[in-house]
Amino acid sequence: MWDPQVQEYFDYVLPLVKKSGEELLTAENYEVETKGFVYDLVTIYDRKIEEILIKKIKEKWPNHKFIGEEESEINGIKKLTDEPTWIIDPIDGTANFVRGLKITCVSIGLVIKKVQTMGIVYNPFLDELYTAIKGQGAFLNGKRICTNGQTDITKSIFNYEISIARRPNYYDLYMYRFKHLIKVIMGFRSLGCAVLGLCYVADGRLDAYQCDGLYPWDAAAGVLIVREAGGYVCDSRGKEFNLMDPNFLATSTKALSDQFMIIERKADEERLNDRNSTKSEKTNTN
Amino acid sequence: MWDPQVQEYFDYVLPLVKKSGEELLTAENYEVETKGFVYDLVTIYDRKIEEILIKKIKEKWPNHKFIGEEESEINGIKKLTDEPTWIIDPIDGTANFVRGLKITCVSIGLVIKKVQTMGIVYNPFLDELYTAIKGQGAFLNGKRICTNGQTDITKSIFNYEISIARRPNYYDLYMYRFKHLIKVIMGFRSLGCAVLGLCYVADGRLDAYQCDGLYPWDAAAGVLIVREAGGYVCDSRGKEFNLMDPNFLATSTKALSDQFMIIERKADEERLNDRNSTKSEKTNTN
Repeated sequence: MWDPQVQEYFDYVLPLVKKSGEELLTAENYEVETKGFVYDLVTIYDRKIEEILIKKIKEKWPNHKFIGEEESEINGIKKLTDEPTWIIDPIDGTANFVRGLKITCVSIGLVIKKVQTMGIVYNPFLDELYTAIKGQGAFLNGKRICTNGQTDITKSIFNYEISIARRPNYYDLYMYRFKHLIKVIMGFRSLGCAVLGLCYVADGRLDAYQCDGLYPWDAAAGVLIVREAGGYVCDSRGKEFNLMDPNFLATSTKALSDQFMIIERKADEERLNDRNSTKSEKTNTN
Repeated sequence: MWDPQVQEYFDYVLPLVKKSGEELLTAENYEVETKGFVYDLVTIYDRKIEEILIKKIKEKWPNHKFIGEEESEINGIKKLTDEPTWIIDPIDGTANFVRGLKITCVSIGLVIKKVQTMGIVYNPFLDELYTAIKGQGAFLNGKRICTNGQTDITKSIFNYEISIARRPNYYDLYMYRFKHLIKVIMGFRSLGCAVLGLCYVADGRLDAYQCDGLYPWDAAAGVLIVREAGGYVCDSRGKEFNLMDPNFLATSTKALSDQFMIIERKADEERLNDRNSTKSEKTNTN
């Protein structure tokens, strides 16, 4: 349903996102700090972009709420309320950005009454702007996009963000799923940018994108863009998709998602069985 | 050493490669055929570009030899002689190309007396042209490039082309190495384009790129570009690098390569031990 208020938000925020992204084209300071995980980097640009976006939106709508990647690093992730809430990833793919790998973007999503309502993603290095408003379709540089309609897992190019397996409590989950999936899919990718991975499912460049253990800012804009492009997003553990604790599998079609989920459940089961048998071995030898 | 003859080859072939690449920008027919492996695709553009490059170079130097990906598919890979030999990958990353993922390129390398002498790689979608002549450095769009000098594996972004694990006889090799490496590196990528992976080590976007079980056309241009950019390339099995049977690990520095090789030898050893113990278990139960 077309909502003039949402359109007003969109028209105001879109140029702010583009301008923020364009700043990255002339970046000169690539110094990084490491956050919680070794691969989780932050630059002065991450902080600056988030601050500016929050400041500009607050000026216009002081009652709006914000969940930003950098601000959450300090204060923790706020609870989602019914208020219009902007969820911001100032630079997704910071490790790519600092190395000049042009798979990086600015991402902002708007959630109203806990419903994902708008998403804007901009990769300034390729001048690619992905946008979606709920119920109005998804667009790349103003041109309507849709997923590629893939329904056959054996022909699919699958992006799994396997760097997350670096986290000790995710290592087994990723490895078991990965070793099952790699035998079935056509090709494997790992691009290092969750938001663009989702956008690439939306515009048909990828057939499937999965990442477990992510954050609201990785999913806020991209998940809506996939859905508005006719794609399917679910929680990889088979639960209902939860924006505030996203473990997402995004696919061109529901049929493709079903095929992935059969394999993932098999992998998860094997992992739990192996864990239990290791435990019982330990008990027996103790 | 500057060789006017090599310069003449370079000046003649460079515009041919750029023109070939530019044709991809207006491609309309994305129909694919599958070759030996499910992920190994070919389009009309792969065949057309290779034919044109060979035809144009033959017109000028009729005695030159050629090893092209598409022609080798039909006739097998020719033996490398001392004659000037052009090794061509008309489109590397065909699966990316057909999906509009802008990580794809045209690649040509020149080998004279079995020495890699020249490499030209062009990604038309980003308008990025990588070039190198032996002894003269490596360049991106005419600007000198060098690797990022990374010497610490724990801070490295590592691209492993893990789709190759789809081949049954490579599955174990890849999985054992992968599960060891993922615990040590900072980030993992899989971009689906061997030639650009090498170029991205050359210009510092990646710290390390590895692929086992590839072909001469995947390595001919890119390996020279890495070396001329100050990077290090070796055979991942610890043997001498062999262009005609490339299993390459390309790194920013030799120091980084040494760190990778320690882990890979450990992974290979574990794989062989596990295989032997499975064999002996089978023998015992028979």
